[in-house]
Amino acid sequence: MNKQALFEQIIAKRSFLCVGLDTDVKKIPECLDGDMLGFNQAIIDATAPYAVCFKPNVAFYESMGTYGWDVLKRTIGYIKENYPEIFVIADAKRGDIGNTSEMYAKTFFENLPADAVTVAPYMGKDSVAPFLKFEDKFAVLLALTSNEGSDDFQMQTDAVGCAFYEKVLQTSKEWGNEDNMMYVVGATKAQMLEGIRRIVPNHFLLVPGVGAQGGSLREVAKYGMNSQCGLLVNSSRGIIYASKCEDFATRAAMEAKALQEEMNLLLEDAEI
Amino acid sequence: MNKQALFEQIIAKRSFLCVGLDTDVKKIPECLDGDMLGFNQAIIDATAPYAVCFKPNVAFYESMGTYGWDVLKRTIGYIKENYPEIFVIADAKRGDIGNTSEMYAKTFFENLPADAVTVAPYMGKDSVAPFLKFEDKFAVLLALTSNEGSDDFQMQTDAVGCAFYEKVLQTSKEWGNEDNMMYVVGATKAQMLEGIRRIVPNHFLLVPGVGAQGGSLREVAKYGMNSQCGLLVNSSRGIIYASKCEDFATRAAMEAKALQEEMNLLLEDAEI
Repeated sequence: MNKQALFEQIIAKRSFLCVGLDTDVKKIPECLDGDMLGFNQAIIDATAPYAVCFKPNVAFYESMGTYGWDVLKRTIGYIKENYPEIFVIADAKRGDIGNTSEMYAKTFFENLPADAVTVAPYMGKDSVAPFLKFEDKFAVLLALTSNEGSDDFQMQTDAVGCAFYEKVLQTSKEWGNEDNMMYVVGATKAQMLEGIRRIVPNHFLLVPGVGAQGGSLREVAKYGMNSQCGLLVNSSRGIIYASKCEDFATRAAMEAKALQEEMNLLLEDAEI
Repeated sequence: MNKQALFEQIIAKRSFLCVGLDTDVKKIPECLDGDMLGFNQAIIDATAPYAVCFKPNVAFYESMGTYGWDVLKRTIGYIKENYPEIFVIADAKRGDIGNTSEMYAKTFFENLPADAVTVAPYMGKDSVAPFLKFEDKFAVLLALTSNEGSDDFQMQTDAVGCAFYEKVLQTSKEWGNEDNMMYVVGATKAQMLEGIRRIVPNHFLLVPGVGAQGGSLREVAKYGMNSQCGLLVNSSRGIIYASKCEDFATRAAMEAKALQEEMNLLLEDAEI
């Protein structure tokens, strides 16, 4: 899927919601008897009217071995078959030397196949480049994450006061373009989106940390939205675990709808 | 496995060789008809007398979907059953926010189970900490990698001339200790091992880049060896693809033996 198609879907659904499929077999309702795929399908059906993106967190599937990988592949297959307009990000945070990153890119873009994969920047250009060679696919590079540890390196400044995450943005934006790259920017540091937008005005930003991690949607929109929205705001636990009973899908839909309605107003404010 | 047991094995085998199992289904001998597990078992049996460590590169298995994950698990199982003294590193370069890193740690330390996993440092302390909670298991943190892209961020210096990889070493060594952490340091930058040893004198270093990537074993030993050896030097393609014919295992053994013999001399030089 390309950037334009993603924007058109945002317009059509009046939403820039990404639903994070952090499906933990220990947290899904007991009535499902550990059926991760059934849980995902119900969550997808319930929230698809309000979401433009699904983001399976690969760690949760990988931890279940071959069963988990099969569920991951079937989950993405289910989305692509029933909701082909929805963008799928494999949240995998991969990155290695060239020939190895190429293997990862094939896994996520061809085998599963997702529209995008999250990638760690530490190993530099040749670790990211293999992800940029696939048409209508995106590498979503970690820039400023929403966790406490983002202070350890990302926020450290150099001789001229430039934070490391800003250097990552400055350097990496030359490796690709807004049609094959996006960035992860945590909602817990929404005010920094203003400076980030000066460096990457047109790229889509994947914003985790709204909800369970405490970020504000209004702040994110205020500092991060551009003329094509340019935001995918993720909520995982707040939606998929809204209820642990049999009404989990209905409750997930309610949570997703509430966010979509707030997003609709924010898009209106921005005249989108 | 703990650090002392690893050192005892180095003494016993007169080797600090790590054999990288970058098993590409397209590169294994035709006579195997795509049997990745059979290839791995033959390579393991042939090189085990000369190696103290095996390092499956997870990307190569992941790219084969559920089949690949099964081969990865069976490969590690095969090593642990037949060569329990050999250290196993899952080269996966994972790292995410706390609850997700915890999932990855369980996957690699409990499900597979490997002795160590490579981890990317970009997201800071809480992304690495979950890997440090397992007894006799190691997080092998990326410090200075052997690829071209290591110049992009790792070699960048701050206001006082400290390179970013040095900051990663300085900061992260406080998160754990030499019994639950190691570092990746590329052989292509062997002279920098001298400075690295000033920061982390006692940690084991996993050194890729000897052979196909051009690093020199003698240089690595000169600058990087400590009183307990402290080095695991990896060779992947140079060993496992030494021949594409039916003699692949014999040729792999010859390549591994040649490296072991060179390592024996370097250990003697260091009076180990």
